[in-house]
Amino acid sequence: MKQTLQLEREEARLMIDAAIAKSKEIGVLETVCVVDAGGYPIALERMNGSRITGPQIAMNKAFTAAGHKRSTHLFTRAPNGPALPGNEAFGIQLSFGGRFAGFVGGFPIVVNGEVVGGLGMSGGNGKQDTEAGLAGLQALADALKDKGLTVLVEADIKK
Amino acid sequence: MKQTLQLEREEARLMIDAAIAKSKEIGVLETVCVVDAGGYPIALERMNGSRITGPQIAMNKAFTAAGHKRSTHLFTRAPNGPALPGNEAFGIQLSFGGRFAGFVGGFPIVVNGEVVGGLGMSGGNGKQDTEAGLAGLQALADALKDKGLTVLVEADIKK
Amino acid sequence: MKQTLQLEREEARLMIDAAIAKSKEIGVLETVCVVDAGGYPIALERMNGSRITGPQIAMNKAFTAAGHKRSTHLFTRAPNGPALPGNEAFGIQLSFGGRFAGFVGGFPIVVNGEVVGGLGMSGGNGKQDTEAGLAGLQALADALKDKGLTVLVEADIKK
Amino acid sequence: MKQTLQLEREEARLMIDAAIAKSKEIGVLETVCVVDAGGYPIALERMNGSRITGPQIAMNKAFTAAGHKRSTHLFTRAPNGPALPGNEAFGIQLSFGGRFAGFVGGFPIVVNGEVVGGLGMSGGNGKQDTEAGLAGLQALADALKDKGLTVLVEADIKK
Repeated sequence: MKQTLQLEREEARLMIDAAIAKSKEIGVLETVCVVDAGGYPIALERMNGSRITGPQIAMNKAFTAAGHKRSTHLFTRAPNGPALPGNEAFGIQLSFGGRFAGFVGGFPIVVNGEVVGGLGMSGGNGKQDTEAGLAGLQALADALKDKGLTVLVEADIKK
Repeated sequence: MKQTLQLEREEARLMIDAAIAKSKEIGVLETVCVVDAGGYPIALERMNGSRITGPQIAMNKAFTAAGHKRSTHLFTRAPNGPALPGNEAFGIQLSFGGRFAGFVGGFPIVVNGEVVGGLGMSGGNGKQDTEAGLAGLQALADALKDKGLTVLVEADIKK
Repeated sequence: MKQTLQLEREEARLMIDAAIAKSKEIGVLETVCVVDAGGYPIALERMNGSRITGPQIAMNKAFTAAGHKRSTHLFTRAPNGPALPGNEAFGIQLSFGGRFAGFVGGFPIVVNGEVVGGLGMSGGNGKQDTEAGLAGLQALADALKDKGLTVLVEADIKK
Repeated sequence: MKQTLQLEREEARLMIDAAIAKSKEIGVLETVCVVDAGGYPIALERMNGSRITGPQIAMNKAFTAAGHKRSTHLFTRAPNGPALPGNEAFGIQLSFGGRFAGFVGGFPIVVNGEVVGGLGMSGGNGKQDTEAGLAGLQALADALKDKGLTVLVEADIKK
């Protein structure tokens, strides 16, 4: 048996609050989802006026980032994204019945080097999703700093 | 064109907060989801320690209650539930690829006689899901009372 | 953040070896799957000559037991199984696109009171699946005893 | 009626052991799956610390390789892979609800010229998946050599 860290609801909530605060600041309507290490939602919120497609896409991105331990845009960012046509993982995005989201807006939540969950954003363009998502990661980093835990706060995460 | 009322995030949040407060009071671990009139999640929270299966089931119940305008247990409560074997809608629960949840824990959110969304609970037995779910509906009723809006707060809702 | 225990491959392997040894002893052909707390397979083996349907069913049972923290036969054992027609959770087995297996052969793996995974058996009747499955749980119990960890070894597990 | 060769569990196990030994040697975390001629899993193992997405993807690759009698990367390797946009089988990867994996990591298991199963790897890049996968095929070749059976051990297999 191995000891691991598990994300809790209060932490998911503060990440979502921070991501939504940033979304408001930059003027974008987002759905935000935080999932555990298994890709299962802990909390989700959809901003008023944002798209009804947001929840499923945000959940998919969070699942993919947590499950595949990678920021989702890294799968398809030109020209080297492995899931682009002509590159070696083209087709991986068909896995999991369409839940595998290999495009911008999903970030693994990495604490002390281990992936403990994922954060998914849907609603903005890539720059907006990323800025709001990083605000969510930063909020967790701030909250855990005093407990001696380090959270990765960067766009391109690949474990 | 018709004017309709639309549930907002702040309202979904206070429903979830109330449902979770009641869940803690009665000692049960729940996932709570509030969806809009189209069955799309507005907010979801999973209590620490509750089941990973909770989010999908809570979303399904909320979707079904909002979409079919009916408390979900009414589909299969013995002996007259229409989706029970031998009764006339047996099989309806196979619609929507498994998302149609005809069992206890989903309640339509009815404001001034119109269904504006659904509330889904997963984690407890029927009595617990219902008690916590009604606490959620009550919180919305309390919040909207001063605005001249009436919210149905009862277990057996059928529009 | 919460500290939790995580099942490892070596442990999954010894559970499968023990379950298959017992299956041979009692003369039944089984597929055995061990999943983690999120329901994702760690290891799976199908005995020679057993059914091709075994892997999916064993995975489904292990997923359900781990995810819903309950021995799978408890959902539908007569007369009180909650997922039987007329009882309050009838229809829960339609969740997760058919992966929710509410019938005999899935057991949560509970270590020091926490669900860390699931064990799924497919191939025998209920008595055989249970006997071989419990042999798997017993093997883990034996392996972890010296580490001060306690594993539940019983047919009816409900957390 | 025709006599065919059928892969057995002991053979699947030694292939997996060899693929995992090679994965450790080259420093990559893999999930390995061996399926029969019908694409049904015989055995699967996921290395500690590897991705939870690994089992499904490895199963998909093994299924595709066994079922379509072809190394999976041959579908999409530039510039002539038939499943690339612009080439004649683009879209084949949508068959089977996402289970058709036309990218690197799946290899048919060919014995005396007949496809008897598939080996799927998920976790590394293409070079790593291939190196570990070939180690699995080589282990089977070594085990069957004395029985007068020949196993194809090469990356580009197309029957």
